[in-house]
Amino acid sequence: MPGDEKMVGTLMADLFPLSRSITGDGTRATLRRIGAEIPLDVYEVPSGAPVLDWTVPDEWNLHRAVLRDPAGEMVVDTADNNLHVVNYSEPVRGEFDLAELSLRLYSLPDRPTLIPYRTSYYHRTWGFCLSDERRAVLGRGRYQVDIDVSLGPGALTYGELLVPGRVPDEVLVSTHVCHPNMANDNLTGIAAAVTLACWALRDMRRLTYRFLFVPATIGALAWLAAHKEALPPIAHGLVLTGLGDTGPLVYKRSRRGDAPVDQAMTYLVRGRGTTVDWYPYGYDERQYCSPGFDLPVGRLTRAVHGTYPEYHTSGDNLSFVRPEQVVAAADVVLELFDILETGLVPRNLSPYGEPQLGRRDLYRRMGGTANLKSAEMAYLWVLSLADGGHDLMEIAGRAGLPLPTIVMAAQALRAVGLLDG
Amino acid sequence: MPGDEKMVGTLMADLFPLSRSITGDGTRATLRRIGAEIPLDVYEVPSGAPVLDWTVPDEWNLHRAVLRDPAGEMVVDTADNNLHVVNYSEPVRGEFDLAELSLRLYSLPDRPTLIPYRTSYYHRTWGFCLSDERRAVLGRGRYQVDIDVSLGPGALTYGELLVPGRVPDEVLVSTHVCHPNMANDNLTGIAAAVTLACWALRDMRRLTYRFLFVPATIGALAWLAAHKEALPPIAHGLVLTGLGDTGPLVYKRSRRGDAPVDQAMTYLVRGRGTTVDWYPYGYDERQYCSPGFDLPVGRLTRAVHGTYPEYHTSGDNLSFVRPEQVVAAADVVLELFDILETGLVPRNLSPYGEPQLGRRDLYRRMGGTANLKSAEMAYLWVLSLADGGHDLMEIAGRAGLPLPTIVMAAQALRAVGLLDG
Amino acid sequence: MPGDEKMVGTLMADLFPLSRSITGDGTRATLRRIGAEIPLDVYEVPSGAPVLDWTVPDEWNLHRAVLRDPAGEMVVDTADNNLHVVNYSEPVRGEFDLAELSLRLYSLPDRPTLIPYRTSYYHRTWGFCLSDERRAVLGRGRYQVDIDVSLGPGALTYGELLVPGRVPDEVLVSTHVCHPNMANDNLTGIAAAVTLACWALRDMRRLTYRFLFVPATIGALAWLAAHKEALPPIAHGLVLTGLGDTGPLVYKRSRRGDAPVDQAMTYLVRGRGTTVDWYPYGYDERQYCSPGFDLPVGRLTRAVHGTYPEYHTSGDNLSFVRPEQVVAAADVVLELFDILETGLVPRNLSPYGEPQLGRRDLYRRMGGTANLKSAEMAYLWVLSLADGGHDLMEIAGRAGLPLPTIVMAAQALRAVGLLDG
Repeated sequence: MPGDEKMVGTLMADLFPLSRSITGDGTRATLRRIGAEIPLDVYEVPSGAPVLDWTVPDEWNLHRAVLRDPAGEMVVDTADNNLHVVNYSEPVRGEFDLAELSLRLYSLPDRPTLIPYRTSYYHRTWGFCLSDERRAVLGRGRYQVDIDVSLGPGALTYGELLVPGRVPDEVLVSTHVCHPNMANDNLTGIAAAVTLACWALRDMRRLTYRFLFVPATIGALAWLAAHKEALPPIAHGLVLTGLGDTGPLVYKRSRRGDAPVDQAMTYLVRGRGTTVDWYPYGYDERQYCSPGFDLPVGRLTRAVHGTYPEYHTSGDNLSFVRPEQVVAAADVVLELFDILETGLVPRNLSPYGEPQLGRRDLYRRMGGTANLKSAEMAYLWVLSLADGGHDLMEIAGRAGLPLPTIVMAAQALRAVGLLDG
Repeated sequence: MPGDEKMVGTLMADLFPLSRSITGDGTRATLRRIGAEIPLDVYEVPSGAPVLDWTVPDEWNLHRAVLRDPAGEMVVDTADNNLHVVNYSEPVRGEFDLAELSLRLYSLPDRPTLIPYRTSYYHRTWGFCLSDERRAVLGRGRYQVDIDVSLGPGALTYGELLVPGRVPDEVLVSTHVCHPNMANDNLTGIAAAVTLACWALRDMRRLTYRFLFVPATIGALAWLAAHKEALPPIAHGLVLTGLGDTGPLVYKRSRRGDAPVDQAMTYLVRGRGTTVDWYPYGYDERQYCSPGFDLPVGRLTRAVHGTYPEYHTSGDNLSFVRPEQVVAAADVVLELFDILETGLVPRNLSPYGEPQLGRRDLYRRMGGTANLKSAEMAYLWVLSLADGGHDLMEIAGRAGLPLPTIVMAAQALRAVGLLDG
Repeated sequence: MPGDEKMVGTLMADLFPLSRSITGDGTRATLRRIGAEIPLDVYEVPSGAPVLDWTVPDEWNLHRAVLRDPAGEMVVDTADNNLHVVNYSEPVRGEFDLAELSLRLYSLPDRPTLIPYRTSYYHRTWGFCLSDERRAVLGRGRYQVDIDVSLGPGALTYGELLVPGRVPDEVLVSTHVCHPNMANDNLTGIAAAVTLACWALRDMRRLTYRFLFVPATIGALAWLAAHKEALPPIAHGLVLTGLGDTGPLVYKRSRRGDAPVDQAMTYLVRGRGTTVDWYPYGYDERQYCSPGFDLPVGRLTRAVHGTYPEYHTSGDNLSFVRPEQVVAAADVVLELFDILETGLVPRNLSPYGEPQLGRRDLYRRMGGTANLKSAEMAYLWVLSLADGGHDLMEIAGRAGLPLPTIVMAAQALRAVGLLDG
């Protein structure tokens, strides 16, 4: 919808300049801005708290980091782009020879105009990121470093929205909020999740929907740790990120490989993109799908991380992404939600013999003709396979009929009391 | 056998003119004629009786239906062909304008010489069926309709033959007896079933055989309803119909898809026809395979319903079918029965190490040669896979040997006490 | 290793002339010579003892068998080659017409220079084997037969070496010791097994290794019969034979088809040979894999029995085989043992979320780069799939990484306490 595109565009523009990291005030500001669209519960987990095999790190807040050349001219300034400092750099003030400094400068010789994104959350260090063009013209001499950050006990912050449905079975949507000054990764994931949350809030749904806005890795781990003893009944899940570029959709299967979400998304992206098998690298699906949890959580992206030159650089900015692509991706997820709401695995409530469709006006009156209409065949297929062992996608595939025809048949049969749900 | 062909031909000729429907005296006469070949138990279920999701309809008996043109000339007369009236038409006597009447006339513009078959069992209406050629020359004016039928409380009638074997496991053979004035559909199914029943009656068999001669849909439902609480142990089943045309055999898998009958029939029709997967349309396999029962019942036909122009028309007459084709189809089912009798899933009674075949004269005496004969290999394959988890077809496939070689090996091994059964 | 090649060559040369059969002193001498390399327990099972479906036959000892022509000239003499007498011939001394004798002469018209190998263990008879060239020039007249053998109550003899490991799970290696005067079949299997036994003895291993040196069929049956009531926990097994020719390796799957040994060997012979599915003919895998035992025992050979012209003839002599081929085959089995020792099915001990590899120095320190090194991907793959349901070969296949990379990753993860075993 045009309204969605406008919201997506405005939200991404507002969030872009905020200085995000896995902790800190930029992330808090990000969650506050999301909270202006949807009601968000915000949680804080103190530094030092153990989360599964990890520990919440100290909180990092960037005030400003600058590097000046021997003449006092500005080389890089996070006021221009907060990618210029290695994320989680220690506070440093001092002078360094170029030779010494060089080990702490990060640039991309193969993409000389772009500033790389570098982080060091769990190993104390510091450094600057800059374009290779800029680096190439640095002269000898002593450079002035001023990394004005605070790095000490604080908290990890994440946001959550739970939208209860008529049944406790949950759909989990998770997206990360830690990446600074980049748009596709991950303002598009955030914007898509907000779009979906608005849909979930609009009406009472059958399923319960849970939206997580978490710092990557440690935020997902913190949420999992908090719920480890009594994990909610997550029946389906998606990690959303990188949805704003012009590439086709890419669905990555959950570790289970054939969970309902895998089957439905495989069906839905056909013709619109591709499906790839599970692999243990990427975004927070790594945590949700770790073997101890093994949740049915897949991932939807467009261009896959690491495969486009703007990935994790200053090239991933607002002009790299298109709101209509974000909305188109969200629309596919809404098709998924429709299927999940319909009841993925229908059950025939009159399974002994064929129910008499004629007296329910779902069948032709005159017998003897050679063939049935596809709607009648759809009723018969759904009734035949609705034994709790086949989902709607499988029924569509077996019937050789389009999924929407099968979904409509299931809805009609449910309306006359022949299907559960 | 020639004797079978003669019986098949005579039986079909005798049955052809009877005015069958899903109820009524024509169906009773049909069952009486079958009863002259094999001992048949005949059951009556009263109109109004609930059978599963359905209700037994009123009984319909056709005395005569005629349509006369404005000049008093006969247009159609069920004395010529009882397809001329819509089966289950209400009684009607009166005059109708052609325009009015036209909505109640059924013909086939694409097959102008044939009378279509039309029914309306559960929705009260009336009408005539005629060739499109005849219809084309009807002139304006008032037509005299005289549909002399009785339609009121009565009963549904079906026939059953149970032939007990040494074990209670049953083979179900079901065929429908409701279609009037057509031969392939379904005098051929009736004749094939009678042939098979004669075989079952000839000697005491290992398995129990049950033959059902039922009105389509409602008859199968009535039988299922009567046995729902204590369904007999149906281990294998076949619906028989349309076996007299010159087409190749077509086996339709049961809903289970891989029941023993599916595996054996797939094997047996190879080279003689094709196997198609389950679909929820067709004949009474729809009822036996409904998900609540899910019986291992496949279907054997030749040309499939709806795919030949004579289907459900007056073109499906005695000259359309050949007794030798019916017998050839029955012979394939007898091959199936041979396999089922042999014991589809053999069990090695000496499974620890290879039994010494040499002292049982099932193995060469002189050792050291490079290869075994195929009979010896067949013994070894059967013994190796006879663990209760592999059937004879699977063993033949794994061995790369013809099924008859494997069946003979199994019989030889059973004869020396190495296999069960 | 060169040392192994020397041992293999010497062992085969020493064993070649011994007059082996399924019983007798030649077999005892063979086991004594093997016992000079590795500590062997030797068992004797008396003639007449029942072993499963069989009975241990009388013991057969060949002193000398000669056939002289009417002129008294030597035709064949087992002092030249003990293949010349049908193995297990009865003692015979007498004169026979050529016509009469002819039925007891075995030669190979298609391979006129080779002496065939013939046996008749369980059916009393006698005969001579000779080249077809020699046979062709036999003149008419009476021939003098002197088969000086003893055939009477005695024992069946087999050897066994059990090398206990830290866990009771066993690897079974079985090879046959009955074939006389042939090299590929089966001095190569014996020599390979001895090489592997030396490896097992060199250090304490995790798994227990059991080596069987048994007469074919009846020896394997005797061992199985002796252990039938309390079969040791054989987790993996291999029958070794025919490993010295120049052909590629051929792995024959166990009857189970997908046992860990099947999966590992299929992986290991890729590029070095082929894998064939189970079939119930061949060597002692027939007994170990009989359905009552169904042990996970595959078979490793090079050229398969019956497919090379020297098979079961005097052409299968020491010049037909190469010690380096035997050692190369044994080296592949050692790769198998490495995998089995590593623990085929690892289990992640920190399965909730990803363990923090960075603090264990198993992960890059600086984040943000696009791709991981293959070692890091190997850690992630092993951790992701180490849920007790995936073995190392499957993990390698899913990861698209070489098996050694996965094995090394598993070892590194175990070293830091993240994997069991």
